[in-house]
Amino acid sequence: MKALAARGEELSRRAGRKLEVVGVSARDAKKQRGFAVTGWTDDPLSLAKRDADVVVELIGGEEGVARALVETALANGKHVVTANKALLAKHGAALAALAEKNGVSLKFEAAAAGGIPIIKALRESLIAHGVDAVKGILNGTCNYILTEMEATGRSFADVLKEAQALGYAEADPTLDVGGGDTAHKLALLSALAFGVAPDLSAMTVEGIEHITPDDIAFASEFGFRIKLLGVARRTERGIDQKVHPAMVRVRSALANVHGAANGVAVDAGAAGPFFFSGRGAGEAPTASAVISDIVEAASGKPGPVFGQPVGSLQKLTPAPAGSSVSRWYLRFEVLDIPGVLAQIAGHLAEAGVSIESMVQRVRSPGAPVAIVMITHETAQSGVERALKAIAASDKVRARPCMIPMEAA
Amino acid sequence: MKALAARGEELSRRAGRKLEVVGVSARDAKKQRGFAVTGWTDDPLSLAKRDADVVVELIGGEEGVARALVETALANGKHVVTANKALLAKHGAALAALAEKNGVSLKFEAAAAGGIPIIKALRESLIAHGVDAVKGILNGTCNYILTEMEATGRSFADVLKEAQALGYAEADPTLDVGGGDTAHKLALLSALAFGVAPDLSAMTVEGIEHITPDDIAFASEFGFRIKLLGVARRTERGIDQKVHPAMVRVRSALANVHGAANGVAVDAGAAGPFFFSGRGAGEAPTASAVISDIVEAASGKPGPVFGQPVGSLQKLTPAPAGSSVSRWYLRFEVLDIPGVLAQIAGHLAEAGVSIESMVQRVRSPGAPVAIVMITHETAQSGVERALKAIAASDKVRARPCMIPMEAA
Repeated sequence: MKALAARGEELSRRAGRKLEVVGVSARDAKKQRGFAVTGWTDDPLSLAKRDADVVVELIGGEEGVARALVETALANGKHVVTANKALLAKHGAALAALAEKNGVSLKFEAAAAGGIPIIKALRESLIAHGVDAVKGILNGTCNYILTEMEATGRSFADVLKEAQALGYAEADPTLDVGGGDTAHKLALLSALAFGVAPDLSAMTVEGIEHITPDDIAFASEFGFRIKLLGVARRTERGIDQKVHPAMVRVRSALANVHGAANGVAVDAGAAGPFFFSGRGAGEAPTASAVISDIVEAASGKPGPVFGQPVGSLQKLTPAPAGSSVSRWYLRFEVLDIPGVLAQIAGHLAEAGVSIESMVQRVRSPGAPVAIVMITHETAQSGVERALKAIAASDKVRARPCMIPMEAA
Repeated sequence: MKALAARGEELSRRAGRKLEVVGVSARDAKKQRGFAVTGWTDDPLSLAKRDADVVVELIGGEEGVARALVETALANGKHVVTANKALLAKHGAALAALAEKNGVSLKFEAAAAGGIPIIKALRESLIAHGVDAVKGILNGTCNYILTEMEATGRSFADVLKEAQALGYAEADPTLDVGGGDTAHKLALLSALAFGVAPDLSAMTVEGIEHITPDDIAFASEFGFRIKLLGVARRTERGIDQKVHPAMVRVRSALANVHGAANGVAVDAGAAGPFFFSGRGAGEAPTASAVISDIVEAASGKPGPVFGQPVGSLQKLTPAPAGSSVSRWYLRFEVLDIPGVLAQIAGHLAEAGVSIESMVQRVRSPGAPVAIVMITHETAQSGVERALKAIAASDKVRARPCMIPMEAA
């Protein structure tokens, strides 16, 4: 709104019509917002019935007021611009159908990767050869925490506490650090990339809570860096959608997305890999995305919400669980090395997992020892089977850690 | 066309109408093209008069057939999709006016940075806060040569010869290695970023022919890498457009664009820096860009060619020559150090240029010695004044080398 106020004339020229704010609602009517508020109402739903062309929803949440506002606005023939990834990840196809039926836009550039125009790129630009995979650093809080952990050697809990104090992390950080926010965003990128309705149901989601400074240090020794990735891949047996910490090579573009930034790598078939990065959250990047959507909606180019008509979006066929293949980083905390090592090796061999290299690090005498292994390329399910058996041993402390190593 | 043939149905769904090739022309009627040619003609201009909605121009060149085809097509009410940077850099505003007058699209995603959707990003996405600067690696041939020079320590001439043998560089490489191709592309990015008509007239253009393995090695010692950049910046005194080799920090995103890839960094005001990379040339990336334009043109969203109506594009006011400020890398080849060093230092001091650090490297006895200096931040004009005086000395061999060091 500040941007609309400051640059309204230019933006109106771009839209081909005058852009004007005719109504505003929010939780707190008295908050200073840095711009003159016009058309205030305490009832956000009433905005969907006003004499307006575009309704902007920045409330959040997959149900409640946000959903009601978006549905009412679309049903009343208003274009909708939203940043609501949770709503679209869950109800995206139904809302797109409603927009299509009413001949209006439903635009959501701000819903994933903030100011980076990745929604538009997948919807309109990288369409000629099809997309094989999308990998994204989509949560700035997680990336900030991992970057700080690497820079300072401190624990996840310590860095999280500091991030909360600085306002970089929410009081309840679960949605961020647990991977849920990344999952919502990935579902949208995946829908655009593969022509499917957004579908969270078959997505495996793992956060960064279990990453230790040891993992980060070991990664660095191997020439890798740990990032929370959302990964969606087209495989022969379906679409594999996962959110998990991953090791990425230090020289790769994703490894060089630092702090609260976001980055997305798209493998667009013969057209090759593309990479996008920038600020993934915050007022100005969000405004950048929202305003580009408003201008586009106002300029009268509805266009299909997910790039093609809702009727031709496929239902997502998930790849079989545990089918993804990669090298794996495994870390075990054990009490007594000689016996345990044989036991661990035995379980891995039994599951058909072969080891490429091993490192062990003794700390103070009597303290648990970290054993780290890198496997050869192997399917996730085999490693998981071995880890389950290994975790049952009373000489193995804590949950074994298992992180895929990205090839590129 | 191969992509259109293979994925025509999906692309038609995206466009909201059937996409069909109704005519083709090229230099050689007999060449195998990997797809069934329909509607062949030896007269490309006749395509502009056919019963077609979109004319695709991939001929190249700022005048001649390409210009005639584009003008005729627009005048006849056909949408035009082109990859022709030279044509648009020179005649962009006039052609945009013609498209606007006839209510048709003129789209050119493939004209800069190949498959990277940077044209669309600047035209439609990064518009809320305005753009302060665009910096791009826009020529894959130059980036390939610089990457190879760094990897192998070989000379520019050697690597160029090899690149020509491999088909990575043209028989006449001037337009690539001299910076002209980058200049054309930069003019287009600059127009979109700053709302001006494309204008090459005030652009300074320098290529990579004078870069030596020494420069690359010194850059590396300082933690930098040499890239040919197109840089357009909004300054208080006008828009500064330059093509030149620049030192970029090894950890920066631009420094990590390797080989024939392209990369573009956009400083979008409060929304922060954005970065885009991918394949900048070749059949598939070009097809990716061209097809996204065809789909958009066919879906009936003309939209202003440079993001806003031609009438509101400003005439470009160039920043005064020599006004850009940075730290500079300077290399001199001298014969006799003690006397010459004093002379060089004297000329620099006289021009108000202060030195941050100096390195000199003696090779075999009697051979010229390389003296390298890094200046403090200072305006280009002062350094140029000093270099002119220094180059006049009979103890200084060859032309002194001067490369700006990018801050970020």
